[in-house]
Amino acid sequence: MSNQELVVLGRNDETDACCPGLLTAPLDEDQAVELAKVFKALGDPVRLRLLSMIASRAGGEVCVCDLTPAFDLSQPTISHHLKLLRQAGLIDCERRGTWVYYWLLPEMTDRLASILTRPAAEPLPDRAATATAS
Amino acid sequence: MSNQELVVLGRNDETDACCPGLLTAPLDEDQAVELAKVFKALGDPVRLRLLSMIASRAGGEVCVCDLTPAFDLSQPTISHHLKLLRQAGLIDCERRGTWVYYWLLPEMTDRLASILTRPAAEPLPDRAATATAS
Repeated sequence: MSNQELVVLGRNDETDACCPGLLTAPLDEDQAVELAKVFKALGDPVRLRLLSMIASRAGGEVCVCDLTPAFDLSQPTISHHLKLLRQAGLIDCERRGTWVYYWLLPEMTDRLASILTRPAAEPLPDRAATATAS
Repeated sequence: MSNQELVVLGRNDETDACCPGLLTAPLDEDQAVELAKVFKALGDPVRLRLLSMIASRAGGEVCVCDLTPAFDLSQPTISHHLKLLRQAGLIDCERRGTWVYYWLLPEMTDRLASILTRPAAEPLPDRAATATAS
């Protein structure tokens, strides 16, 4: 517990690149603004499906021409959703001839997984104390 | 790779409760709608800060009276954000006398961390093949 109390509010330059620590210390405003953009990009069913289609593709990348048929949406709408995922740093793309190819940027999903992972499980101090006392 | 291709699109009843697998198989529409609600709740800087304040509290719960002063927002606005986090299954609360106390529901953040975690690292098959061939 004392370690937790030693965590300084605000930026932690050593770990900032990887994980501001959503569950271990209060986020500062800048961190929250930055992180909220990524979660907002994930906060839409079409974008989640697009991301899962891209991320789970065995070859590692997907032609936009293979994504569009899965949705009852226009190509420009799909492209708009893909743009938001790209702006959030979740995917990247490259145009080759007629088509654009998309792939996952796993650093971002790794980062999100990391900040959502609890530190090593701690027993609840109060209950542990009660259990010992009884 | 063959294992990946065997993954059936749509619901996987065995793992559905825990992790629809954002990165391992395309989400079906229902899973995406459900999951998008949670990410949408996280897609706001004030809610992220509230969640991190609640999750990182050593005692495990926080009085709303300790949350409000950190923000330049009215009590009803803070309560609205807390309600959205609660509806997303990220926190729960209890009224005791004048104040409402909030705590993290770690099952949901665990679930998000799990679906954002890549399966055991696989070398990129094409590059590995190239490296072996050269």
